[in-house]
Amino acid sequence: MNLTLVGVGLIGGSVALDLREKKFAKQITGVETNPTHAEQALKLKLVDKIEPLERAVKDSDLVIISTPVNTICKLLPEILNFIGDRTTVTDMGSTKEMIALSILNHKRAKQFVPSHPMAGTENSGPQSAIRHLFNGKTAVICDKEKSGQKHLQNIESLYGALEMRCIYMDSKQHDMHVAFVSHLSHISSFILANTVLDIERSASTIFDLASGGFESTVRLAKSSPEMWMPIFEQNQNNILLALDAYIRHLEHFRSTIQEKKFSETKQILSQANEIRRVLDTMNVKGKK
Amino acid sequence: MNLTLVGVGLIGGSVALDLREKKFAKQITGVETNPTHAEQALKLKLVDKIEPLERAVKDSDLVIISTPVNTICKLLPEILNFIGDRTTVTDMGSTKEMIALSILNHKRAKQFVPSHPMAGTENSGPQSAIRHLFNGKTAVICDKEKSGQKHLQNIESLYGALEMRCIYMDSKQHDMHVAFVSHLSHISSFILANTVLDIERSASTIFDLASGGFESTVRLAKSSPEMWMPIFEQNQNNILLALDAYIRHLEHFRSTIQEKKFSETKQILSQANEIRRVLDTMNVKGKK
Repeated sequence: MNLTLVGVGLIGGSVALDLREKKFAKQITGVETNPTHAEQALKLKLVDKIEPLERAVKDSDLVIISTPVNTICKLLPEILNFIGDRTTVTDMGSTKEMIALSILNHKRAKQFVPSHPMAGTENSGPQSAIRHLFNGKTAVICDKEKSGQKHLQNIESLYGALEMRCIYMDSKQHDMHVAFVSHLSHISSFILANTVLDIERSASTIFDLASGGFESTVRLAKSSPEMWMPIFEQNQNNILLALDAYIRHLEHFRSTIQEKKFSETKQILSQANEIRRVLDTMNVKGKK
Repeated sequence: MNLTLVGVGLIGGSVALDLREKKFAKQITGVETNPTHAEQALKLKLVDKIEPLERAVKDSDLVIISTPVNTICKLLPEILNFIGDRTTVTDMGSTKEMIALSILNHKRAKQFVPSHPMAGTENSGPQSAIRHLFNGKTAVICDKEKSGQKHLQNIESLYGALEMRCIYMDSKQHDMHVAFVSHLSHISSFILANTVLDIERSASTIFDLASGGFESTVRLAKSSPEMWMPIFEQNQNNILLALDAYIRHLEHFRSTIQEKKFSETKQILSQANEIRRVLDTMNVKGKK
């Protein structure tokens, strides 16, 4: 099939690598407004050609939008205006409600299948694309009853080729869950980095003392502000809920330290240990 | 030399593996009150024998204490009472001020060299011991002017054999810096795990949605409460400072979202990105 990637960065580029390997895509056309990224995508053979949006999507079999979420909201209605009857469109954004709203009542809304592959790294751009980024992980498909049957099947085949497991939920549910399980991890990491950078004015203390523990916890703080700011903007209400819950838990932990209630402190740590069982189950399941 | 390991868990066990490989230690005696750990340490050949504390330290050349920090405070004065003139003692605890206080004015205080190798994993116990855990990382030696010259050199040789780089600071400085660079990472991770476990009552949502991002950020939440509660207890004041700074940064971030000042949100994320440069410098330095 003819595939169009709108946005050829970490996600789009990694999709290209795997879909070529699986011979899922015969020809891959890229749409990329950043000239450096466009050049890199061609050089790395992630895409066969770079074209302007209208020409690239018009007769495509499958259009995948993997840009920051604010750009998805802007481009999605335009793309639906450009395509014919046969094209299927999906996006890979980390929010879903605002994107759904951007094409409410559009006559081609049934050709769009909102999705979110739960995979990524802290890097961005086509040079960060890696093979098998998606393997064994979960893809969320939202509001499936609103998409046409054939288009839904096309997106399920896409995720099948990426060796992902599909799960289904509505946009509202999706945005609430990812605020806690994904967005809050990023915030805790961004803010940890800032807190430490702020106090440790001499960078040398940080790198003298940062053992593997610090490095893995702040890894996500390296993530792109261009990608994450729009996510926090679009998921504002859920982010506020998640942050309030996190701050509440931190304040409670703080009070056990302040008031020397250390048996309570220990109980909090033991509760957190439960995450080991949850993640081990996940990894066993992922490997199946 | 004859080496005694008081506490044969992740740290003690990993020390044993490397010091044997380097032929730094001829004989390794373990002191271990947990009978399962004692048995595992013998079976894994981490130690040649397990002995009671007094017998094990009495004629040892080097005693390394790698137990939780509350136990270090309890055992250190006893160990100094048991040893003769020639024995050097160090500890590998994550706090330093309270440990120093535990032997204030002890007649053998000069034979003790307080240290903290900045390395570890979220696991514990002798079965978690791994080779080369310490390679290329930093060991902090505290209050070196209070230790005898020969004993200080012995500990520098120890860390040389573990291929660590020694840096020096006083106990007070150490405890403040590690509160931010190490202890706060652990707290942010423990509390993130609890916040998510609390809201996502169905564990299946967590493992369906947890991409690599969540998993690496909560890795430290798997750490042992038996080890970490005493650290938070002993470093109470610095932990409160670090937590207050972290909560203040989170509240500020929250206000930019609440008040839709998204260009400020983006600025916060860009500042956090600075951590990439710091960590990259660290890794280049570590590899040298």
